[in-house]
Amino acid sequence: MARLRAALVGAGRAGAVHAGNLADYAGRAELAAVVDERREAAEVLAERFGVTAFADLEQALEGVDAVVITAPTFTHRDLAVRAAEAGKHVFCEKPMALTIAECDEMIAAAERAGVVLQIGFMRRFQPEFAEARRRIEGGDLGVPMVIKSLTRGPGLPPPWAWDIERSNGMLAEVNSHDFDCVRWLAGAEIERVYAEVAHFKGRERGVDAADFYDSAVVSLRFASGAIGTIDGTCPADYGYDARVEVVCSDGLLVVGDLRGTAILEVRDRDVGTVTPLHRTWPDRFRDAYRAEMRAFVESALSGEAPAVTGADGRAAVAAVRAANRSWREGRPVAPAEEAPA
Amino acid sequence: MARLRAALVGAGRAGAVHAGNLADYAGRAELAAVVDERREAAEVLAERFGVTAFADLEQALEGVDAVVITAPTFTHRDLAVRAAEAGKHVFCEKPMALTIAECDEMIAAAERAGVVLQIGFMRRFQPEFAEARRRIEGGDLGVPMVIKSLTRGPGLPPPWAWDIERSNGMLAEVNSHDFDCVRWLAGAEIERVYAEVAHFKGRERGVDAADFYDSAVVSLRFASGAIGTIDGTCPADYGYDARVEVVCSDGLLVVGDLRGTAILEVRDRDVGTVTPLHRTWPDRFRDAYRAEMRAFVESALSGEAPAVTGADGRAAVAAVRAANRSWREGRPVAPAEEAPA
Amino acid sequence: MARLRAALVGAGRAGAVHAGNLADYAGRAELAAVVDERREAAEVLAERFGVTAFADLEQALEGVDAVVITAPTFTHRDLAVRAAEAGKHVFCEKPMALTIAECDEMIAAAERAGVVLQIGFMRRFQPEFAEARRRIEGGDLGVPMVIKSLTRGPGLPPPWAWDIERSNGMLAEVNSHDFDCVRWLAGAEIERVYAEVAHFKGRERGVDAADFYDSAVVSLRFASGAIGTIDGTCPADYGYDARVEVVCSDGLLVVGDLRGTAILEVRDRDVGTVTPLHRTWPDRFRDAYRAEMRAFVESALSGEAPAVTGADGRAAVAAVRAANRSWREGRPVAPAEEAPA
Amino acid sequence: MARLRAALVGAGRAGAVHAGNLADYAGRAELAAVVDERREAAEVLAERFGVTAFADLEQALEGVDAVVITAPTFTHRDLAVRAAEAGKHVFCEKPMALTIAECDEMIAAAERAGVVLQIGFMRRFQPEFAEARRRIEGGDLGVPMVIKSLTRGPGLPPPWAWDIERSNGMLAEVNSHDFDCVRWLAGAEIERVYAEVAHFKGRERGVDAADFYDSAVVSLRFASGAIGTIDGTCPADYGYDARVEVVCSDGLLVVGDLRGTAILEVRDRDVGTVTPLHRTWPDRFRDAYRAEMRAFVESALSGEAPAVTGADGRAAVAAVRAANRSWREGRPVAPAEEAPA
Repeated sequence: MARLRAALVGAGRAGAVHAGNLADYAGRAELAAVVDERREAAEVLAERFGVTAFADLEQALEGVDAVVITAPTFTHRDLAVRAAEAGKHVFCEKPMALTIAECDEMIAAAERAGVVLQIGFMRRFQPEFAEARRRIEGGDLGVPMVIKSLTRGPGLPPPWAWDIERSNGMLAEVNSHDFDCVRWLAGAEIERVYAEVAHFKGRERGVDAADFYDSAVVSLRFASGAIGTIDGTCPADYGYDARVEVVCSDGLLVVGDLRGTAILEVRDRDVGTVTPLHRTWPDRFRDAYRAEMRAFVESALSGEAPAVTGADGRAAVAAVRAANRSWREGRPVAPAEEAPA
Repeated sequence: MARLRAALVGAGRAGAVHAGNLADYAGRAELAAVVDERREAAEVLAERFGVTAFADLEQALEGVDAVVITAPTFTHRDLAVRAAEAGKHVFCEKPMALTIAECDEMIAAAERAGVVLQIGFMRRFQPEFAEARRRIEGGDLGVPMVIKSLTRGPGLPPPWAWDIERSNGMLAEVNSHDFDCVRWLAGAEIERVYAEVAHFKGRERGVDAADFYDSAVVSLRFASGAIGTIDGTCPADYGYDARVEVVCSDGLLVVGDLRGTAILEVRDRDVGTVTPLHRTWPDRFRDAYRAEMRAFVESALSGEAPAVTGADGRAAVAAVRAANRSWREGRPVAPAEEAPA
Repeated sequence: MARLRAALVGAGRAGAVHAGNLADYAGRAELAAVVDERREAAEVLAERFGVTAFADLEQALEGVDAVVITAPTFTHRDLAVRAAEAGKHVFCEKPMALTIAECDEMIAAAERAGVVLQIGFMRRFQPEFAEARRRIEGGDLGVPMVIKSLTRGPGLPPPWAWDIERSNGMLAEVNSHDFDCVRWLAGAEIERVYAEVAHFKGRERGVDAADFYDSAVVSLRFASGAIGTIDGTCPADYGYDARVEVVCSDGLLVVGDLRGTAILEVRDRDVGTVTPLHRTWPDRFRDAYRAEMRAFVESALSGEAPAVTGADGRAAVAAVRAANRSWREGRPVAPAEEAPA
Repeated sequence: MARLRAALVGAGRAGAVHAGNLADYAGRAELAAVVDERREAAEVLAERFGVTAFADLEQALEGVDAVVITAPTFTHRDLAVRAAEAGKHVFCEKPMALTIAECDEMIAAAERAGVVLQIGFMRRFQPEFAEARRRIEGGDLGVPMVIKSLTRGPGLPPPWAWDIERSNGMLAEVNSHDFDCVRWLAGAEIERVYAEVAHFKGRERGVDAADFYDSAVVSLRFASGAIGTIDGTCPADYGYDARVEVVCSDGLLVVGDLRGTAILEVRDRDVGTVTPLHRTWPDRFRDAYRAEMRAFVESALSGEAPAVTGADGRAAVAAVRAANRSWREGRPVAPAEEAPA
């Protein structure tokens, strides 16, 4: 197979990013169809890339080799299992699913079908994050002692995500990346989490869900003895912000910054030095999204294991659910309570 | 009284900093004596400033207006109470004391004597910290939602501080500043803390105390509904690092950075861009130490209330003790458990 | 024409960058042949992209729509004229040519043939440079008063370029970009230049040309009344560095910095904060090279005028030659002396 | 002599800075009198420090050991010679004087009287500039090849300085520091300068002098073979900006940046990351002003040679005058034309 033909399910914002990256990789990949139960959305995106729109995955499966899932989290399990059972490789956006049971079904379906299942933790592909991991593995900095990761974004989560039962909340929709990232950089599983949450801005934007939170801090203990924190705020009007800091026994690693590009504009004495910042995640992680889709294409074409597995997706779901339980029950919780090995 | 004559107790590193700042403020203040039970240390420092050395505070009290306490924490209560009872103004380094009962004795003694009692939370005097507080109070940034503060330092705490019963551990010796700072910036009391600690580097440097920790992360909930984290690592070889980040409802404040000065040196392609960093706390907070001592002198000369009170010192001790209890008992703890109002 | 078939002439480092960008744009472009008189070099690069290698342009012209010229400067005129006369669109790396007469021949040939001629000033396509231009044009910053641009690179120019008669020297090979960039940002022609040069590092690397220089500073006066400087150093071991600063009447614009990515590594107290820097131009301007080739493809496919014209290339050659004359004659020189309008 | 009693001449902005630094160094120095022919200005400043005001230097000489000159440049020669002839040590603000003959008179008077003459190039005392010099002298970076220095300030020069005959213009009033700084960092004399100037903003602020310029770029050649540039803009609304960059044979040194403090404020998506910048020179070089006055006091008390000599001041005057001549005559000029050795 020289080129991978893919159907994309979910014609939202992430869908448009992945569709563009598939089309841009025309030498190795081909976007063949766009699926969305919101028929009109599917058609708009499909037309942009000159492909066919469908309202249901079934109709799009014929003639494609892979399915890229960018629909809401609660649809992931069903879509991924159907795609795998039809023998298609699966790329699934984060969070992988809502429960550990769903994750397990997806992993089992991919294994039975012998297809690739890659989860969309694209930060692993961002050059500076990848470099950080390489340096830690290289060992020059000693062992990780304290790992801190944060994500803040300008947009309110979509209404279906306000209900935590249905979405696992902001910690899932926004901070899944952090849970994956700290585990990946620590080189160790998360053993215990403790969460505090707050709700400041959602209400003024019309969120009416009883237990909605828009800010969270999570304390972490890793199996290696390292400790850490994750924090998230969404909406955080000021921009899209994703940073990691690792205190190692022989040095410090800082990844990411507040500056979007290297232009400094000093408007006048009353404003100060102004640097553009990242406004959105497609802007902040443009390189990463491009690289993760190319990695998926190569993995599917070659049959080699994907860089981010179902087990990685499952571990993040377990940590998120443990953090939500910690907050609700006011006590530290082990992800293993959620996901017995 | 045109000039304040002060005796300094504790001829260690902080003592030398304060002695220099007193001497430098020659128009308004005068260092009159250095006291240390380690007679030789007292003499070395006293000679540097051309003043008399004593082994005991009693001998130094005559003819001075104020006592500056920079001796180990476990001596603070006794020294402060004796100084106040002799009618001397008191400047006391952080942490204020070991227990809430000790703090209460110090506060009561100062009140009875009508003398100033100022605690050494010098960060409040560092220009960028002070500016951050002004901006939050100004209200342009909305309300604080998430507050994160960290301190990391290169030096191992002194041996007497390895025993947590005797010192309250690294969270007291190093992170007292953070506990004060987040409370001051939040404009709200800390309602609940949860701590995780780790121990990586102390052992290799000869620490043998059973429950010593060299890294900690603390989750915070404030009475205002805001949440936050504090983290500390000591020893952290890479330098002295103190930063605060406040996510407000209408913007973000970042205080402090990793760069010591504005020199960038790019040695060659294999090293990269090198910026000096802060190596020590006297370097990082030189301006703050100078300003806090001047503020104390002015407060003592004028009789106006000090900028950092005994109540502030007491609140930090309560939060530190709650964090230590949280770690030992594996549960969130309210500082109010330690310090009933 | 749905896709542009291109032959690439010059299998060196820039050739490899452009070949990769053509191949990566598979939906719209196709690399069809690699030409280099060093037959072996042509074959290595051609094989990497699965295309045919030739030793001479003539053989490669059949079946292609465009020619991308990345061979040494002294070949540009001949190659560009032959390509244009065969009806092919031409993308030509900077410097456009050695003399104004050569530039004029190239421009005339493209005009006669009705083909696109685009010069490789890729900085215009780098997002932060493009944004700087947009802001100046937008007018919020007032008018440019002082414009400073610099380029420094780690590699010694190739031996053929050591002879200034044959190459116009480092100001041509390295600083052509700056001469184009300041003119583009100023929105005004360069009226007068004055150059000082120095020679420190070439000798130790075996350069034996009598009048070689490895560092230069050039003073500039623009037709708008603005003034400025350009400086270049090559080899400058520390990395690849390209920055522009524009003092405008209502603010300051700074473009580019010394930091390659946002990773900070603080190794220990004796090194300081280390940030990776850009090591090479393909790294520093990766986005720009990609975008300029796509712009060329779109221009050739659509027939619209290219973003960087032959007149732009000619203006830079005139300024470089004026600067060299200024240095040799020890006086300010007008580019118009070199290139009568 | 345990403490240096000083009279200050010139009750303007620089005068207030030096007066404060003298008073602050109460252990070693004492401000004894303020002199200004604008009697009222003298009284305001004198009252602030509790000293006597005079309209003429003569009246203030009795009982003082030193004279600090912060009056306009055209008064420097007369004041300095009178002070030296009365046996007083002299601290003189930059520019040292208007002509080389004046400089020579001042140097001769100080030598005859055996008093210290220190010129106010305070950048040499700013920690990051001093560190840059130390690193260059240390030799790890190899030899300086290209040296660039800039100064931009928000305020229009005072009306007496608009007439270049009377002031030597902005290059003297603003860029004297740069001429001293590049010479000091290069460790070599300036051999040749070439200047271009521009005039954009002065007119709108009421400057009516025919040959006034508000921006300048100067090319430099040093006796060591190094080259460089100086640029200045005044008024430059955006703040006070002073930076130096030295390309050395084994690395790059960058001194100074655009950021005034380490607070970043990110207001919202439409502004970006905002960092305060330096607004004024007393803010930017606060530490330097303090250190240079202490160095002067120590030099005067000890009789040791000052860190910045009359010869240093004279060299800067020669370079400034050469640059002005270069601009007027449209040719490169050697400072030695102005100041025969």
